[in-house]
Amino acid sequence: MRRKVTLKQIAKELDISISTVSKSLRDSHEISEETRQKVQAFAKLYNYKPNNIALSLKNKKTKTIGIIIPEIVHHFFATVISGIEQVANEKGYNVIVCLSDESFDKEVINLEMLASGSTDGFIMSLSKETQQKKDFHHIEEVINQGMPVVLFDRITNDVFCDKVIIDDQQAAYDAVSFFIEKKYKNIALITTVDYVSVGKLRTEGYLKALKEHKIAAQNHLILKIEDIEHCQDSITELLQNNEIDAVFAVNELFAVTAIKTALKLGKKVPVDIAVIGFTDGIISQFSTPTITTVSQNGIKMGQKAAKILIDRLEKEEEDEQYTTEIIETNLVFRESTTT
Amino acid sequence: MRRKVTLKQIAKELDISISTVSKSLRDSHEISEETRQKVQAFAKLYNYKPNNIALSLKNKKTKTIGIIIPEIVHHFFATVISGIEQVANEKGYNVIVCLSDESFDKEVINLEMLASGSTDGFIMSLSKETQQKKDFHHIEEVINQGMPVVLFDRITNDVFCDKVIIDDQQAAYDAVSFFIEKKYKNIALITTVDYVSVGKLRTEGYLKALKEHKIAAQNHLILKIEDIEHCQDSITELLQNNEIDAVFAVNELFAVTAIKTALKLGKKVPVDIAVIGFTDGIISQFSTPTITTVSQNGIKMGQKAAKILIDRLEKEEEDEQYTTEIIETNLVFRESTTT
Repeated sequence: MRRKVTLKQIAKELDISISTVSKSLRDSHEISEETRQKVQAFAKLYNYKPNNIALSLKNKKTKTIGIIIPEIVHHFFATVISGIEQVANEKGYNVIVCLSDESFDKEVINLEMLASGSTDGFIMSLSKETQQKKDFHHIEEVINQGMPVVLFDRITNDVFCDKVIIDDQQAAYDAVSFFIEKKYKNIALITTVDYVSVGKLRTEGYLKALKEHKIAAQNHLILKIEDIEHCQDSITELLQNNEIDAVFAVNELFAVTAIKTALKLGKKVPVDIAVIGFTDGIISQFSTPTITTVSQNGIKMGQKAAKILIDRLEKEEEDEQYTTEIIETNLVFRESTTT
Repeated sequence: MRRKVTLKQIAKELDISISTVSKSLRDSHEISEETRQKVQAFAKLYNYKPNNIALSLKNKKTKTIGIIIPEIVHHFFATVISGIEQVANEKGYNVIVCLSDESFDKEVINLEMLASGSTDGFIMSLSKETQQKKDFHHIEEVINQGMPVVLFDRITNDVFCDKVIIDDQQAAYDAVSFFIEKKYKNIALITTVDYVSVGKLRTEGYLKALKEHKIAAQNHLILKIEDIEHCQDSITELLQNNEIDAVFAVNELFAVTAIKTALKLGKKVPVDIAVIGFTDGIISQFSTPTITTVSQNGIKMGQKAAKILIDRLEKEEEDEQYTTEIIETNLVFRESTTT
């Protein structure tokens, strides 16, 4: 059988990035005339037809919503999908999920694939690499083609579309303020590198809470982790500092690793060291001690995103006004903090 | 914009099941002549065109694999998806995931949607309701249309296709035999209702281990749970029996609930009561005590399923020989058992 040439194959063949291929096919002036011509000639030769199905379906609704998320082995994203499913099913829509695996290229490929006639619109959370590259042309492209996009959680201000977020800064501020009010003196932060938008905002919330309570931020109490899989060593190093009496962690894995590490170092939780995590997932509920967390309410976030998208899909006229919906968070108190 | 009428709408309008609509549109002789004519007339009137896109794409490959799983907030299925993604990405395939939410109707709808031009083949694990109804016509239908299907974990012997499973009976047999060799006397079983194929096989493994060691099975030590969300009460009732010194649970949630319940009843784990679970997920790793489990190796299962499917897609000739691949399991020893 004859195989269709893919964006990826064109990129590989011409030794350029998928992003460049995609932009060249759209005749983007970000790309040199020469490259554009080369890509277009190659695509023509191999019969590449972007959105060829979409064209034939132009006025047909698929009644399907595409979701693109960075990873699946992550309770938060799973709960958002559940929330989307609930609303979509009620309104008679199907849901298709694709994973970017934190890769920009996979995000582009999945978006192109689903935009080619499979879905009416998208609900997305950006991959780490997309946030790092700050290249959002693929998202703008589908919006320009008339397919609405709702971004959630990991969003960007560079794309005009509907968004559903929590107030990450405020949530972190609340958690750290709780520690300060309880008279903890040396509150450590375990966070991600800054290009992950939610990690950055949570770090800002931590700093803001300290500042407003006139506590000087100390660099040696702030740990920024790049490689989540191997966070154990740097957390051990951090917690060997016996001054630390409280830890705010920007995700569940950092929180549970901090607790396990503290216990290994002979510290008692919450007596010697109290811990608050972020994301109210399975680990927080089942680890011992159970973990106090900022609940993001993924179900509600998914429901809201689906409602916004479906409302937009079913409106007769195009609405150029976009909304950014903020879902409320709250602290769920458990055994890793004293009340 | 003109909306496409869906299977669901036809079913609702005519007050018949989705399965009946789907079979009628295929002119299945399982359905009465009268119903078939009614459905076909209605579908024609509202311009319903099953697989209209598929027809135009008949000789085109989408290089996309469709996955249909019962639920997403479940570590095992998430790891299988990761395994599928790994192999698919290596071989240049995209992956689309849809959820049946344990519903037969959603499984049919998702399969029809993805079969309409979006994917080359499928990797599926059956919904509870499909296993209960024993209606697999939707799967046979896509296979007949030339789209290969690989079933994994929750499978059926009634469909001829490739399958990837673990030996559920053997895995349960091994776990229970371990208890018997360690001289535990009253080994309880917490399992699902019998129509869930894997639950049934694990129950059989438990019974086989007892029988081969000449231990009489006792009904009051076997708990079959229908409603997973509300398993707490019946597990409490079971564990009030002070004879029980070991529990084999067919999933992670039952295992962690058994441990929490035992602790609440003032029993020590593993001293008073030892526990082995099934599925080596996040809960087993992070709960206290950590839980000894049968590891299903979801990643490996996903990789194998993807390899089998892609091999079949890329073969020049059709191969009528189907394989059933058995992935090895092993016991992962942790704190909930003494060694």
